[in-house]
Amino acid sequence: MGKVICAGLGPGDPELMSVKSDRAIRGARHLAYFRKKGRAGQARRIVEGMLRDDVVEYAMEYPVTTELRFDSSEYRAQLVAFYEEWADRLEALARDHEVIVLCEGDPFFYGSFMHLHTRLQGRAEVEVLPAIPGMVGCWNALDTPFTWGDDVVTVLMGTLPEAELTDHMKRADALVVMKTGRNLPSVRRALAAAGKLEDAWLVERGTMPDQRVARLSDVADDDCPYFAIVLVHGQGRRPEAET
Amino acid sequence: MGKVICAGLGPGDPELMSVKSDRAIRGARHLAYFRKKGRAGQARRIVEGMLRDDVVEYAMEYPVTTELRFDSSEYRAQLVAFYEEWADRLEALARDHEVIVLCEGDPFFYGSFMHLHTRLQGRAEVEVLPAIPGMVGCWNALDTPFTWGDDVVTVLMGTLPEAELTDHMKRADALVVMKTGRNLPSVRRALAAAGKLEDAWLVERGTMPDQRVARLSDVADDDCPYFAIVLVHGQGRRPEAET
Repeated sequence: MGKVICAGLGPGDPELMSVKSDRAIRGARHLAYFRKKGRAGQARRIVEGMLRDDVVEYAMEYPVTTELRFDSSEYRAQLVAFYEEWADRLEALARDHEVIVLCEGDPFFYGSFMHLHTRLQGRAEVEVLPAIPGMVGCWNALDTPFTWGDDVVTVLMGTLPEAELTDHMKRADALVVMKTGRNLPSVRRALAAAGKLEDAWLVERGTMPDQRVARLSDVADDDCPYFAIVLVHGQGRRPEAET
Repeated sequence: MGKVICAGLGPGDPELMSVKSDRAIRGARHLAYFRKKGRAGQARRIVEGMLRDDVVEYAMEYPVTTELRFDSSEYRAQLVAFYEEWADRLEALARDHEVIVLCEGDPFFYGSFMHLHTRLQGRAEVEVLPAIPGMVGCWNALDTPFTWGDDVVTVLMGTLPEAELTDHMKRADALVVMKTGRNLPSVRRALAAAGKLEDAWLVERGTMPDQRVARLSDVADDDCPYFAIVLVHGQGRRPEAET
């Protein structure tokens, strides 16, 4: 009897994956990962040089999106069919084999694997190996404590309406904004309205050799990739003063 | 020339620390960790069986608190003196040696190491190895995706005023509450006021052999240790519907 093991990869530096994920990936005979058609894929790139010679790879390629709007019903239907197909294929493979599925960051924290995890319930044994979320790698890139004391942290998606972003940003001490990308103008205006723009950082490829760290106020509106993360550090809110 | 390396330990299962932390700890000649006086200490317990025979250990024992209120100025003064003393000792050690300092969870996420990190700036080379935060281990213990889509996550300390807890809980999709312990009654009332009590879980020692998972509504007011974590999962907020 086999099973599906989703191995969390962490923020990008292969040395930051867990001992358990590292061992599962190095021993994998069957290895699956998401990627865009025609791309090497970030997950696959992270494990380069770690794989057995006889590994069988399954590139789960997202349906092509160039001619369809990301939020169109046609694209959604293609995406559902894509997840269904791979759930079927993984279920079949897991009857006789152990299959490792790669997932960037922590699989249960905004991970794509959840679309397969949900569909595989009751059909195959599934194990998920936790990992360092991408945002943790990004705040470590700034080499300063992200939160302490009674700081409130809020994690927001840049796709949310600007008024909602502002409302959350005003109330939180420390902030993480994911999926910024093309939403940078509204994320920036919301941060300014919350009085936090001057304290905001943009981190791209945190923990990787080509990591980039910049003050958000220095970043041009068209210079923010979708996967970059915006961070505002907590100030160590505490009832008592400590020097 | 030596340096101070703070090795994040992750949520508790030694196999979940990073390859990098694992290697640093197994190779350590000088190893420091926080603990309460008279206790083995959780950080030290996690690395049991991993250490060199010739390791030199430095137990950084918190000042005794039994006779002083945690928030008294006298206790605060003792705590400051304690951090100052260990910053001095680590600075001296790091002139000639590499010293590994253990830290549970991710060091930059509410970690005690920040009190030394701040004090050692400009006095010693300091490197921090990121790790899986305790909360990530806890949500993995529930074996279901914690967040997806455009979910808003808020991390709160149970020590905050109840009205403030309620306010944040109403606005977030997914919730993490740390430092609950004796604050369980107000955390529970706040969750109820926000309509989220029935969806709340308590996780203790997530990823460890004796991990405990319970519905928060089944937990007695006096049965919540300080280090247990309360979780409410996100529901996958999304602009588009997906089946």
